[in-house]
Amino acid sequence: MSKEITSREQDYSQWYNDLIIKGELADYSAVRGCMVIKPYGYALWENMQHALDKMFKDTGHVNAYFPLFVPKSLFEAEEKNAEGFAKECAVVTHYRLKTDPEKKGSLIVDPESKLEEELIVRPTSEAIIWNTYKKWIQSYRDLPILINQWANVVRWEMRTRLFLRTAEFLWQEGHTAHATKEEAVEEARKMLEVYADFAENWMALPVIKGVKSEQERFAGAVDTYCIEALMQDGKALQAGTSHFLGQNFAKAFDVKFSDQENKLDYVWATSWGVSTRLIGALVMAHSDDDGLVLPPKIAPIQVVIVPIYKGEEGKKKIDEKVADIINHLKYAGIRVKYDNADNARPGWKFAEYEKKGVPVRIAIGERDLENNSVEVARRDTKEKQTISITDLNISIIELLDDIQTNMFNRAKSFRDSMITEVNSWDEFKDTLEKKGGFISAHWDGTAETETKIKELTKATIRCIPFDRKEEKGQCVFSGKPSEGRVLFAQAY
Amino acid sequence: MSKEITSREQDYSQWYNDLIIKGELADYSAVRGCMVIKPYGYALWENMQHALDKMFKDTGHVNAYFPLFVPKSLFEAEEKNAEGFAKECAVVTHYRLKTDPEKKGSLIVDPESKLEEELIVRPTSEAIIWNTYKKWIQSYRDLPILINQWANVVRWEMRTRLFLRTAEFLWQEGHTAHATKEEAVEEARKMLEVYADFAENWMALPVIKGVKSEQERFAGAVDTYCIEALMQDGKALQAGTSHFLGQNFAKAFDVKFSDQENKLDYVWATSWGVSTRLIGALVMAHSDDDGLVLPPKIAPIQVVIVPIYKGEEGKKKIDEKVADIINHLKYAGIRVKYDNADNARPGWKFAEYEKKGVPVRIAIGERDLENNSVEVARRDTKEKQTISITDLNISIIELLDDIQTNMFNRAKSFRDSMITEVNSWDEFKDTLEKKGGFISAHWDGTAETETKIKELTKATIRCIPFDRKEEKGQCVFSGKPSEGRVLFAQAY
Repeated sequence: MSKEITSREQDYSQWYNDLIIKGELADYSAVRGCMVIKPYGYALWENMQHALDKMFKDTGHVNAYFPLFVPKSLFEAEEKNAEGFAKECAVVTHYRLKTDPEKKGSLIVDPESKLEEELIVRPTSEAIIWNTYKKWIQSYRDLPILINQWANVVRWEMRTRLFLRTAEFLWQEGHTAHATKEEAVEEARKMLEVYADFAENWMALPVIKGVKSEQERFAGAVDTYCIEALMQDGKALQAGTSHFLGQNFAKAFDVKFSDQENKLDYVWATSWGVSTRLIGALVMAHSDDDGLVLPPKIAPIQVVIVPIYKGEEGKKKIDEKVADIINHLKYAGIRVKYDNADNARPGWKFAEYEKKGVPVRIAIGERDLENNSVEVARRDTKEKQTISITDLNISIIELLDDIQTNMFNRAKSFRDSMITEVNSWDEFKDTLEKKGGFISAHWDGTAETETKIKELTKATIRCIPFDRKEEKGQCVFSGKPSEGRVLFAQAY
Repeated sequence: MSKEITSREQDYSQWYNDLIIKGELADYSAVRGCMVIKPYGYALWENMQHALDKMFKDTGHVNAYFPLFVPKSLFEAEEKNAEGFAKECAVVTHYRLKTDPEKKGSLIVDPESKLEEELIVRPTSEAIIWNTYKKWIQSYRDLPILINQWANVVRWEMRTRLFLRTAEFLWQEGHTAHATKEEAVEEARKMLEVYADFAENWMALPVIKGVKSEQERFAGAVDTYCIEALMQDGKALQAGTSHFLGQNFAKAFDVKFSDQENKLDYVWATSWGVSTRLIGALVMAHSDDDGLVLPPKIAPIQVVIVPIYKGEEGKKKIDEKVADIINHLKYAGIRVKYDNADNARPGWKFAEYEKKGVPVRIAIGERDLENNSVEVARRDTKEKQTISITDLNISIIELLDDIQTNMFNRAKSFRDSMITEVNSWDEFKDTLEKKGGFISAHWDGTAETETKIKELTKATIRCIPFDRKEEKGQCVFSGKPSEGRVLFAQAY
């Protein structure tokens, strides 16, 4: 166990922060609630971006870029959306600083530079985008519009956590426009499938797909679809959302199109997004008390090679052999790093790369050279094996695949073991307190019950799973009739 | 000549706007001075990003992300930098909106949400980054730091132009930290070479490398290196800058390191950036009165195929053949689009893709099928040729190469023809008025002369070229001794 990292048992929350800081994913900044994404964390985000971006393009989407600022009058046009974000908006009110006449070297906001209309730093871009779509859409021939944007957004959160909840975060937001309701619903569902695919097959993160209750819906949406993941402490985390927006934004911004019969109608909309928050989910789903455990498919470094030698002569021999190994691994598309720095012992390096979650570590000593073999350790299970250098490429590729699969299966077994069906309120409370995880329970469908359960237990409805079985029952809280079970959990 | 596009002769400035809007690179937005980068323009930017990003990584740099906001106290720490940007800062002063008690459905800034310290939306990130580097740097072992960031920045410009000068723009900013002055200077020079390489070999944009005069220097830099390009109207455009920052920011943020002898010293710095402004340069350097002319290496679509047919039967035959051609072209890594939409005639499509600057257009009719050939038109010279389908891949690859080379050579011939050596003040004024372009003239090295020339002619010193010949002379304006010629021009 790494001395630098607090154990999960000791303090789960501190463990998480230690992993982020000491695993060099991010750092605190001088700006309240904003973080610095360090090179190692950003390389992880880039790998995630590349995979997602390809999936978006393969499903017919294109990227574009819309302004950072939203004039207040546009921001307030879609009332529910405005209401939902008004309390957490960074507002630009002035456009100039001037020298403080009372204090040399200091600047003050120039009162004469007050803006006629305040600008909101985008917390999400529906308003500015639908105001633009109005110019772009006249006829059904202009539809669909399938646009995605990679951008930074700002939500002034009071309690912030690295990656999980920061005032500024990076994300992508898709904003699509359609001629029919069916097509828009299909798009929103399709993008949720893309997110689930990405979470499970790239991040090794099992997710439950479902629809949000009215209370948990995105402000301004008709329906919010979501993927929900489970963290090791038994709390849920919303990993991505896709919204069917109906005609709400088209109505707010007066965006109409003439259909093939020349009839005017409002345009149908979706929006969908995932953010750097996913990195928080990744960390909490897979890591252990020794540090991060990263899935090979998105790990910035997939394989690290550490030489073990005595004296310059030994080092030189190993360096030569490793140069050859690296060429082969790189040729196979493997992201490999050779750490032959002189200023640290192998044991220190081992701990360092365990902390950083590098999936595979290869140690190579002078005797290994003689035997034409290396010692290979996998990060997920800590198992070690001796592998012939001749077969190394194939062995490493298979091992990386195996780690990816194993991480997913392990997380899925855990997640599945943490879905508990309960049939009484006592059972509900008891499970939540002693076990945590997802609680599958009947709910009467009212916001009233949902609110009371939240007040009493901090558990919210995470989703109504798409694949729930048909089963009528009685609400676990009110005893009233229920159409089926929903998933409750305490959540990040 | 396209009817939609104003000719250069008629109104150069309107021509430029027409190209951007009608070529679908960007659109105006509801936010003063901010633009929307449309999918076609963004795809161009993505291609530029990918090429640059690879060049940065190949030279040992890594990406990271720093906060959008800079607290005022950090912003003002490096005095010259602060002074340089203070007049064009978007300032966040509040973090919440609330319902307007006097007007239902309206929001107002909640006066109770006033920030204790105002936040500046970054116009550039030296301040926030050097405040962070302070935490990361203790010893020479922590150096160099070679970080780049892709980000949006905001500078509140009074007169804005699409791409060339917008309140918000996208860019990359490199920020490096070094143990010695020599290493920092070398880094700043190396990145200027990277920019010049990118401009010339990807954008087909010939540039002059040099150093700025003191007046034109980046606020806070010791030296600003730049690449300067020439537009078709004879005005210069600064296409990229790389700054040697000395120890200015290290001193402002108290960033010291202990060297190998355990001696403390301030860290040496560079910063360097290029932005979406480059797209403006690209447009003005190459385009003609029919629309954009994009260099193949970064064009979103390199080849467009337009079918010419009568009736469904003919279309089907062509569709089948083209599917095969496209597979081959894509396999060779060529970005190809097939436009077989029914709702427009071939002539209209030809004009459309000319407007969008697609380097190569292939037209294929039923008779072409019989002859196993296609008609290929190149955008740069408008030349057409008939090419056998059998050899198409090789022919297209060669043609794209040739277009890339031709565009560079054409721009370079023009640029070279527009560098005029002058030896008297009358000649200077006369050349500027009648010919424009770069004026190579002796200058006495004083800010006073520089300022007067600017006031009288609007021409500024674009750079002191790295490769200027050793030649003493007399200042073209003051008659005082000069150490060598510098380049003057009116500039964007």
